[in-house]
Amino acid sequence: MTILRGNAIVGQSGGPTAAINATLSGVIRGCADAKGIIGKLYGMRNGIDGLINGKYIELNYLFRNDEELSLLEKTPAAALGSCRKKLPDPNGDSEIYARLFKLFEELNIRYFFYIGGNDSMDTAAKLDKYAKRVGYDMRVVGVPKTIDNDLCETDHTPGYGSAAKYIATTVAEVIADCAVYDIPAVTVIEIMGRDTGWLTCASGVGAAIGGAVPDLIYFPEKTFDLEKLYADVEKALAKHPNVVIAVSEGIRYADGTFVGEDKSGAVDVFGHKQLSGAAKTLASAIKGRFGCKTRGIELNTVQRCASHIASLTDITESVSLGMTSVKAAVDGASGQTVIYKRKSNVPYEVEFETADVTLIANQIKYVPDDFINADANGITEKCLEYVLPLIAGELATVYEKGIVKHFKF
Amino acid sequence: MTILRGNAIVGQSGGPTAAINATLSGVIRGCADAKGIIGKLYGMRNGIDGLINGKYIELNYLFRNDEELSLLEKTPAAALGSCRKKLPDPNGDSEIYARLFKLFEELNIRYFFYIGGNDSMDTAAKLDKYAKRVGYDMRVVGVPKTIDNDLCETDHTPGYGSAAKYIATTVAEVIADCAVYDIPAVTVIEIMGRDTGWLTCASGVGAAIGGAVPDLIYFPEKTFDLEKLYADVEKALAKHPNVVIAVSEGIRYADGTFVGEDKSGAVDVFGHKQLSGAAKTLASAIKGRFGCKTRGIELNTVQRCASHIASLTDITESVSLGMTSVKAAVDGASGQTVIYKRKSNVPYEVEFETADVTLIANQIKYVPDDFINADANGITEKCLEYVLPLIAGELATVYEKGIVKHFKF
Repeated sequence: MTILRGNAIVGQSGGPTAAINATLSGVIRGCADAKGIIGKLYGMRNGIDGLINGKYIELNYLFRNDEELSLLEKTPAAALGSCRKKLPDPNGDSEIYARLFKLFEELNIRYFFYIGGNDSMDTAAKLDKYAKRVGYDMRVVGVPKTIDNDLCETDHTPGYGSAAKYIATTVAEVIADCAVYDIPAVTVIEIMGRDTGWLTCASGVGAAIGGAVPDLIYFPEKTFDLEKLYADVEKALAKHPNVVIAVSEGIRYADGTFVGEDKSGAVDVFGHKQLSGAAKTLASAIKGRFGCKTRGIELNTVQRCASHIASLTDITESVSLGMTSVKAAVDGASGQTVIYKRKSNVPYEVEFETADVTLIANQIKYVPDDFINADANGITEKCLEYVLPLIAGELATVYEKGIVKHFKF
Repeated sequence: MTILRGNAIVGQSGGPTAAINATLSGVIRGCADAKGIIGKLYGMRNGIDGLINGKYIELNYLFRNDEELSLLEKTPAAALGSCRKKLPDPNGDSEIYARLFKLFEELNIRYFFYIGGNDSMDTAAKLDKYAKRVGYDMRVVGVPKTIDNDLCETDHTPGYGSAAKYIATTVAEVIADCAVYDIPAVTVIEIMGRDTGWLTCASGVGAAIGGAVPDLIYFPEKTFDLEKLYADVEKALAKHPNVVIAVSEGIRYADGTFVGEDKSGAVDVFGHKQLSGAAKTLASAIKGRFGCKTRGIELNTVQRCASHIASLTDITESVSLGMTSVKAAVDGASGQTVIYKRKSNVPYEVEFETADVTLIANQIKYVPDDFINADANGITEKCLEYVLPLIAGELATVYEKGIVKHFKF
């Protein structure tokens, strides 16, 4: 492989996570290490959408600035800004590609790193295709992230472990909160996950230390049935007065409609249905059926940006992932993405590999059947073994005057 | 003052907090220290309501058990269980008092500690009155707690600092999350506080370190006006695309109706109106007016039980409060409560004093006018000076296999 010398650009795209800035830090660290090959490192403001409008900054000032990079790694969301933008067909003659590649040429961009979920991998795949089509020598590497953990090929995704740790902790605290009164009450906690129940799995990990777990857990991978729920709740209430239920936002009835569906039927730019309120819907249904006190709790966006309780494993891996992505590109990878391959659960061991970015783009990885119990209302031992290493370890959050401190460009 | 020898009982009442178990630990530590005066220490299960039904346990096994007490101090909610029970008039001849005092006599209870908010102080006041009326020698001490910080006499309340720290941190994280997209959007965060805006004040503390704060903050102490909100939002949107607003759940229109009022008009056992959805209501209103993307986030019960990010100051003080309450009772206090008196902001200094429990019962302390800015949409420097010491310091949360560990009876 010939050595490709030039500049690099990095962008963040899609929904925020607690780990996407750690990966950005890793890319910055990796580019600093590629001295003599990569010269300047630019950062897109608001992803590809901002770049189309000429919005970018220089990031070289952060090379070897360990203090700032360390703070960046503990900062939630996307410090460079993000976007949700679907690029047009790279085989067509869109003016967007012309503009982008003119800028790439002007800035001598030879390395393009795009940190994002499956929709962002689609962007990386298209840019790679277009570059090859027009013969522009640029290595495009997609760097995966998503709290949803639903990317194919990779064992897990950066951001998942931190969101999972927040969920495990918060669910334990909510269960303690619910347990204080001695009267029948049902609390429904709604956890993110439109298509998959990976995050909802995390609500059950307390079992590994004999801690509190929800009485019932429901996943979008299984058809949701209200009568089955009522039967499950009745059994749970017979055991103790305070019943806690965890559900994915994406649980669906047999006819395919979401339990928490918004009647407006609005869809986002990627054609996804907007969701709201599985927890409140079910709390209301259970109140109607059992007449007891109920409460719906939506964990909401807080679960994806709770850097103060990030998983040390997740953040450490995310930094390494960014560094490894740069290395892979320097070594010749393009149209590819770096993924995690798990070698062992105990002791936990993971290795990096590369995969074709098109294998990840627009695909969804579901929670496997043997992670969900036979009653479809809880997790299995196998699920525990999978999730536990990913939430291991705590990060030393930076506080000043008792207030959490974040990095800012 | 004569030395009163006998046994003690402690109970927890009202809504959970991250500090009420720290105070319980303090009472246990205090009773252990009162060796020779206090013999057995009992714990009511589910407060006075459980005790009426004969539900209590022995707590002496925890005396000097520092490891377990330390874990108890880091456990949210109310480990003994709680209740919401209003006792009848102590001047009447209720069968409830007869039952309770028969039990006190059987168990030789001479010290009664009741950890709770203003409704619980009412319970303490009534028991003290009844004991004096029937000539039963028992010292009743109310031990304050409430995340709401709305108790009179005391500078602040145990539980407030921890909830405030959670809110300050979470709001900073949500603001980072909101900032990622470059399109006009308004996020409304709803914070607990039916009557007072103390917790909502905490959303603005980031200013002290140049960190992120909401663009607008609204308090129940000030009449809420939708047209004023629209004018404020318009100004904020002119400055940057991502506007974040923090509101107390209890904000009210000029006619006294709650912005987030539940149309069912349901009231709880204390005659409080049930609330729901100021954030969602305003998000919907702003969407209608400005046509931009909006989101309503309810911090919900999570904010009152987030022990994993408790304030070290709050938890340390709460333990001392419990110990001091026992000492005060041994020294003769009855019908009283131990309160915080702040001596200085910088360096922060606080002392314990006692106050008549009737001064606290059923009273509400509001956020003072000079804590709220002239536009009634933000906090002042004076407010910052008040809140900052209360959220200072972090507790070393106990994790096992990456999962938060809690104490359980």
